[in-house]
Amino acid sequence: MDKTAIINFLKKEFPHHEKISIDEVGYRSATLRHRIGKEELRPGGTVAGPVSMLLADVVIYVAILGELGRVPLTVTTSLNINFLRKPSAENDLIARCKLIKVGKTLIVGEVDLYSEGNPELVAHVVGTYAVPSANRK
Amino acid sequence: MDKTAIINFLKKEFPHHEKISIDEVGYRSATLRHRIGKEELRPGGTVAGPVSMLLADVVIYVAILGELGRVPLTVTTSLNINFLRKPSAENDLIARCKLIKVGKTLIVGEVDLYSEGNPELVAHVVGTYAVPSANRK
Amino acid sequence: MDKTAIINFLKKEFPHHEKISIDEVGYRSATLRHRIGKEELRPGGTVAGPVSMLLADVVIYVAILGELGRVPLTVTTSLNINFLRKPSAENDLIARCKLIKVGKTLIVGEVDLYSEGNPELVAHVVGTYAVPSANRK
Amino acid sequence: MDKTAIINFLKKEFPHHEKISIDEVGYRSATLRHRIGKEELRPGGTVAGPVSMLLADVVIYVAILGELGRVPLTVTTSLNINFLRKPSAENDLIARCKLIKVGKTLIVGEVDLYSEGNPELVAHVVGTYAVPSANRK
Repeated sequence: MDKTAIINFLKKEFPHHEKISIDEVGYRSATLRHRIGKEELRPGGTVAGPVSMLLADVVIYVAILGELGRVPLTVTTSLNINFLRKPSAENDLIARCKLIKVGKTLIVGEVDLYSEGNPELVAHVVGTYAVPSANRK
Repeated sequence: MDKTAIINFLKKEFPHHEKISIDEVGYRSATLRHRIGKEELRPGGTVAGPVSMLLADVVIYVAILGELGRVPLTVTTSLNINFLRKPSAENDLIARCKLIKVGKTLIVGEVDLYSEGNPELVAHVVGTYAVPSANRK
Repeated sequence: MDKTAIINFLKKEFPHHEKISIDEVGYRSATLRHRIGKEELRPGGTVAGPVSMLLADVVIYVAILGELGRVPLTVTTSLNINFLRKPSAENDLIARCKLIKVGKTLIVGEVDLYSEGNPELVAHVVGTYAVPSANRK
Repeated sequence: MDKTAIINFLKKEFPHHEKISIDEVGYRSATLRHRIGKEELRPGGTVAGPVSMLLADVVIYVAILGELGRVPLTVTTSLNINFLRKPSAENDLIARCKLIKVGKTLIVGEVDLYSEGNPELVAHVVGTYAVPSANRK
């Protein structure tokens, strides 16, 4: 699937994620952003941790769509996140994923998260998806 | 903080989490539930992974509030989730946390997630929070 | 495989692990111990972290052998460890595993590690093994 | 500490790790290698998982020594490893660490592991160390 096809697929299948948009889908990679507003903030002005987890989960899924095409039965089997710095409350949260393994049944993606305009990582994620064999190209 | 104090604190600080409620706050433990509706479901009728991650993150936070009192600067430093089975689309998602370490700066919680009415785990989480020393009792 | 068969299998396949012994193999569970001597200690008298990781990896493998029988091609796909307290330099390190998922291709085990004679956890592990379908009973 | 000082420190403090050697210590980074012989292999000719875990743990420690100097009380608090491909039984295992967070109390390192001569990752690790404040420069 190319970027336009993935955007349409996500709009239809994940209508609640209207604050997430796709910057780029590349070879075994993808970059997404999440707009940050009042709803994403926690007391103290920090971006809620689950926003980063959601964005990391979706960016790996998008990178898989770009690699394998439409695989609706793909499911996350594990996700490990380390929070490193306080994200900006003013800027979009960016997630850049590269797939570090595309195996027969397991796909592993690594994700760097940062606030737009600041290259320092705010969080780092490794996530694993299982792809049912019937869904492979 | 007791259960009522925590409920009021969460209502004020996390007004967007109105689908999450507290069943119990015990000694270094807590049980929460998340109501499941259309917004929590993904294609295929499964509960979206980030719903489990959010609930796990909050249940550890609630167990910490029960143990340490009001610690608004506490932050998640890592969270590791393994998805084990498909949750029910019809039933509340339940998260039961016990704190397995309450250290000077780090607190570690383990969380079992399951769908109400079925004791089999749908996901398992280990999460770590850092508590600034100035916030300790 | 029963306990005796597993002990013989490990002795043959893992001759270097002579400090590890099996206490018990139960239903989707196992308990192992690692003798602690000078070689396992780090400066300051603490048990080296990799000793805990090794023991956790092996105890999950033993629990899988007890559940599925001889599956030599089973491989660890991920392991997540949290170190909670300083283990004793004087006592055996004990690892108690229960399998929280036995799926078609993935098996997930949770492991509590503690020093003999003290019930407090020194470390907690979640590990995942992949079982090639040809190896399933 | 520079590379020579770290080599001498490790030789003294970790005399059992004579198969591990240091290729490079850079800015918030380090590269180590582990010689692979019969003792490191599992049935089927694969390198035992715990060898990768040990090497990853040590390479993060070396990168911390290069950044902070001698910090003998530093302890691993968590380590998450994903095994991606079968390592070579014939070649050294290489681990390249970069520190992605150097905080007041927590240091997080990311490690790429591969077999010499093949750039594809065989495993990927994220590990966290806690540094007692008294030990900071």
